[in-house]
Amino acid sequence: MKARIVKLFCRKRIRGPRRHVQLLVATSAVIMMVLFFLIFVRFFGGVASNNPGSPWYYYCESGICKKAEIIENVTSPLCLGICQLFCGEVGGIWPKPTGHTSFGNYMAKLNPYEITLSGVDFGSITGQLIQENVNKLKQNIMNLASIDTIKKGGYSLILNIIGQFNNEAPILTINTSENYTINIYQKDNKLYADISSATYFGIRHAIETLSQLIVYDDLYGEIKITRDVYIQDGPVFPYRGILLDTARNFIDKATILRTIEAMSMSKLNTFHWHITDSHSFPYSSRTWPNMPRYGAYSSAKIYTEKDIKEIINFGILNGVRVIPEFDAPAHIGEGWQWVGHNSTVCFKAEPWQQYCVEPPCGQLNPTSEKVYEILEGIYTDMLRDFQPDFFHMGGDEVSIKCWNSSNLIKDWMIDHGLDFSETSFYKLWNYFQSKAYETLIKANNGNKLPVILWTSGLTNEDNLQFLDPKKYIIQIWTTKTDNTIGRLIKNDFRVIFSNYDALYLDCGFGAWIGEGNNWCAPYKAWQNIYENSPMKILENQGFSKKHKHLVLGSEAALWSEQVDSTSVDSRLWPRSAALAERLWSDPSSSWIHAEQRMLKHRERLVQRGILADSLEPEWCLQNQGHCYL
Amino acid sequence: MKARIVKLFCRKRIRGPRRHVQLLVATSAVIMMVLFFLIFVRFFGGVASNNPGSPWYYYCESGICKKAEIIENVTSPLCLGICQLFCGEVGGIWPKPTGHTSFGNYMAKLNPYEITLSGVDFGSITGQLIQENVNKLKQNIMNLASIDTIKKGGYSLILNIIGQFNNEAPILTINTSENYTINIYQKDNKLYADISSATYFGIRHAIETLSQLIVYDDLYGEIKITRDVYIQDGPVFPYRGILLDTARNFIDKATILRTIEAMSMSKLNTFHWHITDSHSFPYSSRTWPNMPRYGAYSSAKIYTEKDIKEIINFGILNGVRVIPEFDAPAHIGEGWQWVGHNSTVCFKAEPWQQYCVEPPCGQLNPTSEKVYEILEGIYTDMLRDFQPDFFHMGGDEVSIKCWNSSNLIKDWMIDHGLDFSETSFYKLWNYFQSKAYETLIKANNGNKLPVILWTSGLTNEDNLQFLDPKKYIIQIWTTKTDNTIGRLIKNDFRVIFSNYDALYLDCGFGAWIGEGNNWCAPYKAWQNIYENSPMKILENQGFSKKHKHLVLGSEAALWSEQVDSTSVDSRLWPRSAALAERLWSDPSSSWIHAEQRMLKHRERLVQRGILADSLEPEWCLQNQGHCYL
Repeated sequence: MKARIVKLFCRKRIRGPRRHVQLLVATSAVIMMVLFFLIFVRFFGGVASNNPGSPWYYYCESGICKKAEIIENVTSPLCLGICQLFCGEVGGIWPKPTGHTSFGNYMAKLNPYEITLSGVDFGSITGQLIQENVNKLKQNIMNLASIDTIKKGGYSLILNIIGQFNNEAPILTINTSENYTINIYQKDNKLYADISSATYFGIRHAIETLSQLIVYDDLYGEIKITRDVYIQDGPVFPYRGILLDTARNFIDKATILRTIEAMSMSKLNTFHWHITDSHSFPYSSRTWPNMPRYGAYSSAKIYTEKDIKEIINFGILNGVRVIPEFDAPAHIGEGWQWVGHNSTVCFKAEPWQQYCVEPPCGQLNPTSEKVYEILEGIYTDMLRDFQPDFFHMGGDEVSIKCWNSSNLIKDWMIDHGLDFSETSFYKLWNYFQSKAYETLIKANNGNKLPVILWTSGLTNEDNLQFLDPKKYIIQIWTTKTDNTIGRLIKNDFRVIFSNYDALYLDCGFGAWIGEGNNWCAPYKAWQNIYENSPMKILENQGFSKKHKHLVLGSEAALWSEQVDSTSVDSRLWPRSAALAERLWSDPSSSWIHAEQRMLKHRERLVQRGILADSLEPEWCLQNQGHCYL
Repeated sequence: MKARIVKLFCRKRIRGPRRHVQLLVATSAVIMMVLFFLIFVRFFGGVASNNPGSPWYYYCESGICKKAEIIENVTSPLCLGICQLFCGEVGGIWPKPTGHTSFGNYMAKLNPYEITLSGVDFGSITGQLIQENVNKLKQNIMNLASIDTIKKGGYSLILNIIGQFNNEAPILTINTSENYTINIYQKDNKLYADISSATYFGIRHAIETLSQLIVYDDLYGEIKITRDVYIQDGPVFPYRGILLDTARNFIDKATILRTIEAMSMSKLNTFHWHITDSHSFPYSSRTWPNMPRYGAYSSAKIYTEKDIKEIINFGILNGVRVIPEFDAPAHIGEGWQWVGHNSTVCFKAEPWQQYCVEPPCGQLNPTSEKVYEILEGIYTDMLRDFQPDFFHMGGDEVSIKCWNSSNLIKDWMIDHGLDFSETSFYKLWNYFQSKAYETLIKANNGNKLPVILWTSGLTNEDNLQFLDPKKYIIQIWTTKTDNTIGRLIKNDFRVIFSNYDALYLDCGFGAWIGEGNNWCAPYKAWQNIYENSPMKILENQGFSKKHKHLVLGSEAALWSEQVDSTSVDSRLWPRSAALAERLWSDPSSSWIHAEQRMLKHRERLVQRGILADSLEPEWCLQNQGHCYL
């Protein structure tokens, strides 16, 4: 079988992650086509597609795909999808590769029914996971167009996996390499993709990259793949996350799975699960089944052990690890009603403004031994369910006024030689945190486990002494100019950025208490997220690249006061993809240079079933370079 | 069969639309229950449900459903859904009825499989439409819970339709009565709903109201209906609309149908279809098939005659009429390329800021006879396809600079004795508008048709003389304090409010040109929309209620630069429901009094398949009165 090959008259070679090579490519190609190939008139005939009779084709000029009319002397017109692969940066791959990248001149017609896998042990767990990714690749290709518009035939493709994997289930930790190389070429009438990585996770990323090099040519009704491609790739930051809050509103399992799958499309790797809060307790603790019974919004709104297992396994398949957060001593409330023994303080206290940042208020009573007994059970359950390499203990927004309202606590403080000054309450908080940490380690069979805490009163100048940078990683939710950041770096804390001025994706909607807009308005645009560079934030606080090892990465946060399963997709996507490129590639260029790839990536997300928001009129995608300020 | 009846120990009677009667209802009821019915312990046993073992029930106190623990002496606990029906305003109906309303004390168990229709001629079009509504009612009931959790049995329900309908297809115009009454009662072991209206549209609204009086009792696993209900209802404003722009981005047919269905759930009645713009031409004009061929984003992104017929028929079924807009002389561009003859001016002109408000620029050449020939074809096609009672001619954002850039136009102006002053260009615009209007009437076989125009330079003080209030209705998109409003009212124009400071639902997201947030940020919260009272706007401009006849109503606008099929639901809902109540009921009370019903209505929309945004934590729904400022 001989499949049609479209020669593109363009050659492109980009070396290294940050070299922006302007290529003299397509202008001349188009001029050549127009001048020399006057033989075939392809106005209607010959161009069979799901865009029949389209009068438009595209050519590449100065890195931009330009739209033009198919007039009589235009032969072999290119569709937009193919033009995008060769015109502009890195073949439209999102996030853009960081190592050596080279693209050939050709597209080959691909037979999506003949994609096979070689070089893996199909009996091994890793082999099975890779096979699942190949199945998903096929599905994604079939989603590019409706099946009846895809012409039959084309080259077969063999994915050849190069790597040594043992027979254990792969585990993604902060130290796991995610690097890979991919080499696509044609030999003996077949297409090959050699994929090499030290880990399953690198292989998975490579298959994602491969999928982005396959397009549907809507002028010819054919699936096509970029030929003669070599890509070396790996992430700049190891922690590339999304936080999802499932307590303010419940998020159903299907939506969590869809979120993880969408993350994998942008090579994000950490799903931070803020599973409980004052508002609800949807976690099915086996030790304390009364917690979800009293605390879930309904019995249908609980994550069972089986649900969590499914989510974690789906995470591994998609290169995403799951980190649970059990936020304490604030951000608790619903679910604790059955415990008694004065385990909580100021739950549902009113007026709530006096005791907390939003209703309902609620904090653990740090002086209650019962509290630590309950915590040990919860920690034990979570460690067994999640088997995380980090544990998130929350620790944000503790209200001194709340604790100060409890005589029980104040009596304990007097007994322990504390007055009721702010300093004393911080000592009380430290007492809680230390004891909760010990409880966690005990629940982990005495094994140490890195713990993440939010920036809070404990990370203030006076209190940071309470925290040990060997034990704690700090997640920054305050603004990018908060001098807490500098303090943390100076004190050798590893940090994760979730600065709300860029990374809180719930901002900018209507207020849910009172009227007007919500507290962290305005809405954070993708451009803002793309520009939110951890290294630039550090630089602006006077630090150099030598502190990079302290920056694990960033995380977009979706707090769910005004989000549930219906809107998770539209809040997260495509904005989280902007975060993904910032963390994977850390480009020196600004969002403007990523805009066309971003528009294309958003279309990709939608094609794969993610209800990602639209960023611009489709006109801007079809008329590149015309939507500027 | 004898079904269980829950007596609620509460009696509620509200007369008239705006009387807020505080009822001494449930506090005493609950106290009575707690004191006198100590016989049955219903802690776990007896309460079978999809919320098994829930420790919570609800009781009504001061118009609020309060959550409490089911302790030993609580018998017959109420679920939240039932409490909401009797506690607070009008049984949770959205929008709230405007006439006499009375509620009994009882819930009856309903057998959703035994709902039948009587009093209609099933052979008639209206009869068939009503039957379809009853089928949808049944489907909505089944969506209240998963089928295996609904216990069998219950009373059958007969919908008895009282009205005289001829055998013609019902037509909804601005003058159609939508009033209805509904009377639900029990007789001889059956439930009856007597529904009376002069029109199909009133009957349809009544069935919607009925559906909102049926709940799933999750403590008992039963479908229940409010018994002994009488409601007299009808809208305050006749024009209650949503604008959807399908040109900046294409919106698929399924999404349009879903939008119409969602509108019907809030009794909105006008779908204003901004079908074309400079960005794309998705309308399949039969006279000019080249318009969509050149102007659609792809051949798959075109509304065919069949699509439009389906949408219009679905609109009638759902009590929603469809009004097409063909915006001119600005807001045109894509699709006109094939016409030639200098039919358009400054299309894709750059820098675009000099010629229009957003890329791509484009205006019709008012001096070209070819333009009117094309317009006549488009108008003819649209009038045949839509058969509207109003036609929207757009007419916004005409750029004088654009026309001024064309020598062809300037030559014509000189020939017609015009200089190049602003006044002359307004005369040119008036020339276009008058001629386009004549063309429309010609396309309508010489029959007059009310035309809607946007506020624009033509509605300025100097130019309003050009417009005849007998011909034109003005849709106001400027702010609620714009003194254009007063000018229009003074000059006897009928108006529709779409003031962007409350009713532009695309506002508040990221910029799509440049960075930051979009031009009309911030996001318009539902509270703002609810408070956007047309009569208050008039009052603030010094007019009294005697001008009410000039206010047809309002319309929420969803411009689609940053919206496509993925996000239409979340942008429109539940915010458009706030508009719906403002227009149907025009309550004198503020959003705070509607908040709990709004939260419930949002859940209703989601249950029926609309991806409506979440407004608040579910905690606020389950803990009424605790989420305040």
